[in-house]
Amino acid sequence: MSSLSIALIGPGLVGTEVLGQIAAHGGAGLRVVAVASSRRVAVAGAGDDGALGLFAAADDALDALTAAAQRHRPCVVVDCTASGDVAARYPAWLALGLHVVTPNKKPFAGPRLLFDAIRSAARAANVSALHEASVGAGLPILSTLSDLVDTGDSIVKIEGILSGTLSYIFNNFSSTSTAANQTPLSFSAIVNEARQNGYTEPDPRDDLNGMDVARKVVILARVAGLNLSLEDLPIENTVPEPLRAIPSADEFMVRLPDFDAHFAALNDAARARGKVLRCVGVVDPVNPSASGVKLAEYDASHPFASLKGSDNIIAFTTKRFPNPLIVQGAGAGAAVTAFGVFSDILKIKRQVEYASRLHPNTHP
Amino acid sequence: MSSLSIALIGPGLVGTEVLGQIAAHGGAGLRVVAVASSRRVAVAGAGDDGALGLFAAADDALDALTAAAQRHRPCVVVDCTASGDVAARYPAWLALGLHVVTPNKKPFAGPRLLFDAIRSAARAANVSALHEASVGAGLPILSTLSDLVDTGDSIVKIEGILSGTLSYIFNNFSSTSTAANQTPLSFSAIVNEARQNGYTEPDPRDDLNGMDVARKVVILARVAGLNLSLEDLPIENTVPEPLRAIPSADEFMVRLPDFDAHFAALNDAARARGKVLRCVGVVDPVNPSASGVKLAEYDASHPFASLKGSDNIIAFTTKRFPNPLIVQGAGAGAAVTAFGVFSDILKIKRQVEYASRLHPNTHP
Ligand SMILES: NC(=O)c1ccc[n+]([C@@H]2O[C@H](COP(=O)([O-])OP(=O)(O)OC[C@H]3O[C@@H](n4cnc5c(N)ncnc54)[C@H](OP(=O)(O)O)[C@@H]3O)[C@@H](O)[C@H]2O)c1
Ligand SMILES: NC(=O)c1ccc[n+]([C@@H]2O[C@H](COP(=O)([O-])OP(=O)(O)OC[C@H]3O[C@@H](n4cnc5c(N)ncnc54)[C@H](OP(=O)(O)O)[C@@H]3O)[C@@H](O)[C@H]2O)c1
Repeated sequence: MSSLSIALIGPGLVGTEVLGQIAAHGGAGLRVVAVASSRRVAVAGAGDDGALGLFAAADDALDALTAAAQRHRPCVVVDCTASGDVAARYPAWLALGLHVVTPNKKPFAGPRLLFDAIRSAARAANVSALHEASVGAGLPILSTLSDLVDTGDSIVKIEGILSGTLSYIFNNFSSTSTAANQTPLSFSAIVNEARQNGYTEPDPRDDLNGMDVARKVVILARVAGLNLSLEDLPIENTVPEPLRAIPSADEFMVRLPDFDAHFAALNDAARARGKVLRCVGVVDPVNPSASGVKLAEYDASHPFASLKGSDNIIAFTTKRFPNPLIVQGAGAGAAVTAFGVFSDILKIKRQVEYASRLHPNTHP
Repeated sequence: MSSLSIALIGPGLVGTEVLGQIAAHGGAGLRVVAVASSRRVAVAGAGDDGALGLFAAADDALDALTAAAQRHRPCVVVDCTASGDVAARYPAWLALGLHVVTPNKKPFAGPRLLFDAIRSAARAANVSALHEASVGAGLPILSTLSDLVDTGDSIVKIEGILSGTLSYIFNNFSSTSTAANQTPLSFSAIVNEARQNGYTEPDPRDDLNGMDVARKVVILARVAGLNLSLEDLPIENTVPEPLRAIPSADEFMVRLPDFDAHFAALNDAARARGKVLRCVGVVDPVNPSASGVKLAEYDASHPFASLKGSDNIIAFTTKRFPNPLIVQGAGAGAAVTAFGVFSDILKIKRQVEYASRLHPNTHP
């Protein structure tokens, strides 16, 4: 017996894993009624038994998915793309009484108008738009922040290492455990290693430019109740200025070693102060102009300094938590991102089941 | 307009703060319809306007509270006592269609029969029994664990510093930052300082005996789906054997310095291995007999080693999080405990509001 339907867009890395986790959990009382990519769609029949049909080419894949979702309400549209076009459809889906769950940052970090339209459409139609996995994948970050805000706590500062790639690069480049007499690996060597291992975007400048972190800062700020957009944010671009205009990623990698001395000097200066370098996103409601993305120094005893691998970490300093509440762990990867998506789906499922047990036979 | 009522038991440190946080938040759309201590009760009138009446002496305070809660459903009974008698009433409240929220460990760490009765009564009556604040106060610990379990992750190990008092004592006694040539404070001096500052129970043995941590281990294990009870658990009692039977706390404190050499030897041995001592609770589903409360050594680079103050920390190692998901922050104190309680209340409020907007005028 399924109480809630799923219409999933984007069966890529994360989307496929979401479907896999649901299936591995015996369906979890959920029924997948549509799956769409940008050019293909599969939908379930109108009946209750209906398996998905063929994943067939279609010009109007999202319209077909929407129709199937409407036929099978209550239904969650699960957006596993990084598409702005898909994001633009959220207000319409919500207005149709469809819930939305997503790891996509675009709908929440993009134009304020879209963010507000999503919030108000959800409220008006009594549905949810949940996006835990848009910051820190499956880590309980947005739910914790919402709880703090909803219970009336005052946010003093939010500070985090929110990019797995930048976490990996700086954890390896600037470590407290590098003995004083031991030469650390050069910055370019670490970036190169990260790229070879597939930890970076094809062009590592897409990580180093801070834009991914900036989008997460915007989402955190908005969930904290601030009116902040990408344009408002000082974003420290770690790519050396002369390398920004180089067309190819390969040429960028060839030229990066020219700047190893520059990064080594920053690192040595930090170490001389007993500190390490970390690339962090900051939300500062007290002094909003201090929000942004920056390369900052942290004391060797600070939790950010002992971070390992490509873990994310976030610290919420609030009136009730003057010593911050900290959440840390893997903030990227298909399994943990799908976990965040699946958890959000189950929150909606619990609501729907509560309501339908209160009023059997009357649920839309 | 209030959509959910609150009947609060135990206006002590935490209970008063819960009422304060709700009031500071403009009532948060909640209506307090009853407050009871063990010998007094105040209830609201049957009307919609009703403020609370007098906090008057009553032999049957809990019965009066129950009646008021029933009159004002949907209602949450908020148990802010540490009472087993109150815990024993949960199944009956749930069966009446009342939700329960609590920081009280007894209902969930006590007899398995009670735990099961609570779970099944809640399921049968379509209500919730939430207790986030029973482990780590307001830290998102039980919600995170439930999400992991509900989405089909496999728990490999749960390990945490779950007592603020023991955190404080061992963070100060066994620190990585104590220089090798500097004599650390003696164990008894730190316990004494903690007691003077009100960080311990009146008798510090009630912290050092590990029972509070053990109860939290039982709760974590049960939420993780294990059938584990207090009797099954090896609990390392940090109180030296000869001091356990001493009747008075003051005499215990006088005798504790006799054992400073014993604790210093443990600490020195750990330090010689580059480690620190921490008192931890462990849930090990793979090898359940390794669950328990123990004094263990952690590497200087382990997140448990750099803990400060009286913070709690918990690490969930799972199939999806082979590097653990970690949550850390204040795990005791009225403000953060009330935050955990208030968050649970708001989760129920969202469910209730979702249902009542779907079906206006039909909510019980
Ligand atoms: N991977 C991670 O570790 C991670 C972590 C946190 C958050 N996220 C977020 O999760 C989302 C998915 O990431 P991913 O790694 O799974 O990406 P991916 O492997 O590239 O998959 C993207 C999917 O979206 C589909 N798609 C793209 N544009 C579409 C459109 N306009 N209409 C319909 N379908 C469209 C693609 O299908 P076609 O190409 O066939 O159209 C593909 O199936 C992104 O928003 C990402 O930022 C990912
Ligand atoms: N304080 C913390 O930092 C913290 C952190 C996590 C969890 N908790 C948990 O939160 C709960 C409350 O702690 P607290 O520090 O607020 O304790 P507290 O200050 O001692 O307050 C306890 C309250 O419960 C009432 N009470 C006791 N037995 C009762 C009974 N049988 N029927 C009705 N009322 C009863 C007491 O009223 P009378 O004495 O007048 O009867 C008092 O108002 C406990 O379960 C504790 O373990 C506390």
